[in-house]
Amino acid sequence: MALATVSKKSGMVLIKGGVILTLNPADEIIEEGYLLLQEDKIEKVGGRREAPPDHAVDRIIDASDSLIMPGLVNTHTHAAMACFRGLADDLSLKTWLDDYIFPVESRFVNPEFVYKGTLLAGLEMIRSGTTTMCDGYFFEEAAAQAVMDVGLRAIVGKGVIDFPTPDTPDPALNIAHGKRFLEQCPSNSRITPALFCHSAYTCGPETLQKAKEVCRSSSIPFLIHLAETEDEIREIRNRYGVSVVRHLDRLGVLDEGTIAAHCVWVAANEFSLVAKKRVRIAHCPESNMKLASGVAPIPDFLQNGIPVGLGTDGCASNNNLDMLSEMDTAAKIHKLCRKDPTVMDAKTVVRMATRGGAEVVGLDKEIGSLEPGKKADIIILDLKQPHMTPIYNYYSHLVYSASGHDVVTVLIDGRVVMDNREILTVNEKDAVTAVGEIGKTIKRRTLG
Amino acid sequence: MALATVSKKSGMVLIKGGVILTLNPADEIIEEGYLLLQEDKIEKVGGRREAPPDHAVDRIIDASDSLIMPGLVNTHTHAAMACFRGLADDLSLKTWLDDYIFPVESRFVNPEFVYKGTLLAGLEMIRSGTTTMCDGYFFEEAAAQAVMDVGLRAIVGKGVIDFPTPDTPDPALNIAHGKRFLEQCPSNSRITPALFCHSAYTCGPETLQKAKEVCRSSSIPFLIHLAETEDEIREIRNRYGVSVVRHLDRLGVLDEGTIAAHCVWVAANEFSLVAKKRVRIAHCPESNMKLASGVAPIPDFLQNGIPVGLGTDGCASNNNLDMLSEMDTAAKIHKLCRKDPTVMDAKTVVRMATRGGAEVVGLDKEIGSLEPGKKADIIILDLKQPHMTPIYNYYSHLVYSASGHDVVTVLIDGRVVMDNREILTVNEKDAVTAVGEIGKTIKRRTLG
Repeated sequence: MALATVSKKSGMVLIKGGVILTLNPADEIIEEGYLLLQEDKIEKVGGRREAPPDHAVDRIIDASDSLIMPGLVNTHTHAAMACFRGLADDLSLKTWLDDYIFPVESRFVNPEFVYKGTLLAGLEMIRSGTTTMCDGYFFEEAAAQAVMDVGLRAIVGKGVIDFPTPDTPDPALNIAHGKRFLEQCPSNSRITPALFCHSAYTCGPETLQKAKEVCRSSSIPFLIHLAETEDEIREIRNRYGVSVVRHLDRLGVLDEGTIAAHCVWVAANEFSLVAKKRVRIAHCPESNMKLASGVAPIPDFLQNGIPVGLGTDGCASNNNLDMLSEMDTAAKIHKLCRKDPTVMDAKTVVRMATRGGAEVVGLDKEIGSLEPGKKADIIILDLKQPHMTPIYNYYSHLVYSASGHDVVTVLIDGRVVMDNREILTVNEKDAVTAVGEIGKTIKRRTLG
Repeated sequence: MALATVSKKSGMVLIKGGVILTLNPADEIIEEGYLLLQEDKIEKVGGRREAPPDHAVDRIIDASDSLIMPGLVNTHTHAAMACFRGLADDLSLKTWLDDYIFPVESRFVNPEFVYKGTLLAGLEMIRSGTTTMCDGYFFEEAAAQAVMDVGLRAIVGKGVIDFPTPDTPDPALNIAHGKRFLEQCPSNSRITPALFCHSAYTCGPETLQKAKEVCRSSSIPFLIHLAETEDEIREIRNRYGVSVVRHLDRLGVLDEGTIAAHCVWVAANEFSLVAKKRVRIAHCPESNMKLASGVAPIPDFLQNGIPVGLGTDGCASNNNLDMLSEMDTAAKIHKLCRKDPTVMDAKTVVRMATRGGAEVVGLDKEIGSLEPGKKADIIILDLKQPHMTPIYNYYSHLVYSASGHDVVTVLIDGRVVMDNREILTVNEKDAVTAVGEIGKTIKRRTLG
């Protein structure tokens, strides 16, 4: 199933010449710096003058006129849904899900679909500077294979729902299938398996509790859509008499291993509960806008010390995976809603997309900043372009001026996966053609 | 002052192989089409099989795997402010204007600044698919020169304010300077001069009326910021006892020659007045979000038959000139605010950015769609990329998936100004360096 792959790790790599945004706890910026990598890790970070001599390393990456920063962490997506990009827009969440997404999923989603869709999404992510994603979908062993082939780092969450799904036609088996996935998921240092309970309205109390139990005993993340729409709040209140946050708390599924996506409708009187339980939040502003779900109270979450990362959501509700555009939206939407242009300043948003995201997915010891000992997940952006000129503030440029296309070179786990806009891991043309064909089939069989 | 220029018009150009989004009144899409250009105009549009033979034309542009559409129309910007990109963010409009923008403008803005800044902005616009801009700033004769050199089409509006400005230190002379500008503005088929009264709070009634009179007698557009913030509404009501819309109406400055930017705070009971007066509106959602100004009631304007175009505003309040990103925001923000994901569908937004914008700037007979007889202002986007795959709906891709970087080739007035991402009109590197230097000077003298 794998498209052609190329893979070679260098021993020592020196990146030099550019501006380094370390995103370390002191938010250090090194105007002309260097990074020394040893295999998959960062060995040293410093000013160019202290860099080792060129002959001491195996490879030199010249980052002149460039910005060097940690790879972006996309804390919530459904990568394989790239195959549905643009299939159904400008619709209500209910119509979109019930009349388009669920029906096409039941007809077309299989391991090959998930592999090809995830591979395409992985390419789009790498091209736009994402080095780690937190994914939730079906046939996640195929997603994991695509992640390994394309060179990404990922949390791969196997979908769990209380109705028939493409990979679990009998929902009574969903926990068993979840356990089986954890056993069968390819073992790789770049992959963390997880379970993804779709939501409290598609998973009953028992499913939620059992899935969380499995996650706890395996020390893996538990992913869920939480408080995405007002309808969800209403429905859960009708069924269980409490808000969805309190419902999940009662079931005991809220803790630091739970990554909750959206959290648009978390009430003010629940902030301290969410903070106390150390729940991690994936903020997806573009999806929430496009589906008219609302705006999550992110400034409040941050003020309460709740870890927040940024996510694009799936391509079917965004419709791209460009984290830099998402950062722009995240910075602007809260200013508008709070009637306060000083909230969610550029630096806060860049942090959220890097070390904030790393904390949300539980990998903050390994990724999220450029510091010695951390994994070499690094992106390099071209600053010498009209829309990046002049330069007063790097954070501002990243959030308000840049887009994913400004990323030219990407390293993940010390491996150069994109070099000066050329993908080195898989055959990109074949991957694009493969999903193009899936799209043609779906279009022919559904839209006419 | 001009950087190196190259300029050559071909006689007959054939564009073939791509999907043509005509944006004609029937919104025709030609799946595999051709466009025949003669000098500055479109001669024919049709299906590929009816295309003239290759040997009959002077040049062929192969647009396979591409989308061909009319150039985008940016209905509101301050191009030279590209020099201030990222200088001051995450601030209130008042602090931003009074403590940053106005002071740096008074110190640094001169004809050279405007030329270089506009040239850079022009490059950014061309790179991201904008072929026509409606500009308002100081020393607009220098802006016009940059527009001519870079190859853009533009409305260049000379700024008029009742306080000392870089080009009119004595505000008593602002109307006289406005008239002089109209006489001295370089004559070029791609340039329409205009006057730009900054706002009703920076221009008194007499200035507004006199400026409008000049515009009327010369049949040129009158540009103004209108109802941008709640503060503006309050201030005008305090001074004149009515809303700013009614204030301008009383002064007689509202008609089809008036291009009003923002219009966030136009009240529901003013929609019919604005419609009746045939005022044209430039919608700048990203700037309005970033400055926390609010959201303009665009769906209502459209329902009332008011012409609406899209604008980026200046780089200091956005901070880029990417109309494709602006389209994405325009589609999403109204869904959120109306709690209705069906409003502002993708096709509506694409129309707004093309023929809608052309109507707003008064050039709808010449540009805004790909139809025989219209000017050859054409952009070509690369569809063969991960984030543009698969394809179900072209409008959706443009609005929700694409960004300005997907534009590969741009023709304006029949001239290829960017060919496969290479700028052909001016030396881009020099233009970037020039504004980089301006930025360094400003940074040294103000921030450091």
